Amino acid sequence: MEQFEPTERTRLRRLASRGSHDRKTIYGILDEGLVCHVAYVNDGKPALTPTLYVRDGDRLCLHGAQANRTLRSIVGAEAAVNVTLLDGLVLARSAFHHSVNYRSVTLYGRGEEVSDPAEKARIFELLVEHVAPGRWEGSRPPNDRESAATLVVALPLEECAAKLRSGPPIDDAEDLELPHWAGVLPSPRLWGTPEPAPDLRAEVEAPEYLLGYRRDSDASG
Amino acid sequence: MEQFEPTERTRLRRLASRGSHDRKTIYGILDEGLVCHVAYVNDGKPALTPTLYVRDGDRLCLHGAQANRTLRSIVGAEAAVNVTLLDGLVLARSAFHHSVNYRSVTLYGRGEEVSDPAEKARIFELLVEHVAPGRWEGSRPPNDRESAATLVVALPLEECAAKLRSGPPIDDAEDLELPHWAGVLPSPRLWGTPEPAPDLRAEVEAPEYLLGYRRDSDASG
Repeated sequence: MEQFEPTERTRLRRLASRGSHDRKTIYGILDEGLVCHVAYVNDGKPALTPTLYVRDGDRLCLHGAQANRTLRSIVGAEAAVNVTLLDGLVLARSAFHHSVNYRSVTLYGRGEEVSDPAEKARIFELLVEHVAPGRWEGSRPPNDRESAATLVVALPLEECAAKLRSGPPIDDAEDLELPHWAGVLPSPRLWGTPEPAPDLRAEVEAPEYLLGYRRDSDASG
Repeated sequence: MEQFEPTERTRLRRLASRGSHDRKTIYGILDEGLVCHVAYVNDGKPALTPTLYVRDGDRLCLHGAQANRTLRSIVGAEAAVNVTLLDGLVLARSAFHHSVNYRSVTLYGRGEEVSDPAEKARIFELLVEHVAPGRWEGSRPPNDRESAATLVVALPLEECAAKLRSGPPIDDAEDLELPHWAGVLPSPRLWGTPEPAPDLRAEVEAPEYLLGYRRDSDASG
């Protein structure tokens, strides 16, 4: 199935051209992002937490301490999750038509605890590799105690949609001759130089997979 | 008042060292960020939207089309808003102690529509200058029609807190001699080269304030 099924909540009311239920688009955004925001209802009021995640096929996996309030709250309860990638500032001649280029995914679903140790181990590996491909081999895997101390919650990727904007600003015709600059300022892509921990053994060099690290999939180094 | 008052919701249960109600810290994070996430309750279920914002003293101002569902939903109703800045990946020798360095603010409050045209004009200027200092003078200000078409909603900065992590990874003592690299990979800071709109008049050069653009306050170019 190449498209997710639209629902009342994922259908776009305005600017439908900016919405998509395309599976490949949604996967691409989720695989590029690092931080998601998790919203849930707590005592009738909205609550909101940023956290890391990884996509595991058609579900999104979150993790935290066993007592993590957000994760505990969404086990068996409805959550809304959003991942937003900011691609650039869109500067139009008119203040009104300023915008941003972005790619964003929102999903709605009920959390489910993942408690099988082998399943958890697989998700830990996915998570570490999502953050830095190559890192799983480059670090000590979780032991039983660490795995038991970690709560993993999965959300189904069923009710979800992407929303995006790309391209140059669109000014009103009567503004085109104004003396103002118009265009796009691309967001930062190049990550910094790895900073060794103060207690790192002197002979350990920064691994290849951290040099020229970037999140966008058209990575060329 | 240098500190915001903690409440049940903004008090940190774990890792209290990562929490702060310090006004200067909270202002700094909000002024550096561009995108916030707005959570609210819709028909008893969580809803979540990313959007631009600007801080106006002790309130956070959002804007959108008059029909904007998120903004309409939080006028007179409770919202939770989060701004998260990702500062770096924290790579420990053990997968378990991997983390991220971040600075994050969460606030809770009820939205209030800003309808006075002069007040709205002031907020539009704040917003444009928040995105790119210098840009207000470098673009055409909104006219009456554009202002009327824009809904502005303010949220009080009262019930809010920052949460942050900085510094190197903290590994267990028994892992320190492992052969794995450990340290921090700083997140991207340097924005791209301005890309002129295809319909830009040839003689308009990219403005100074977009060259070497960056969000962090210790900007050195």
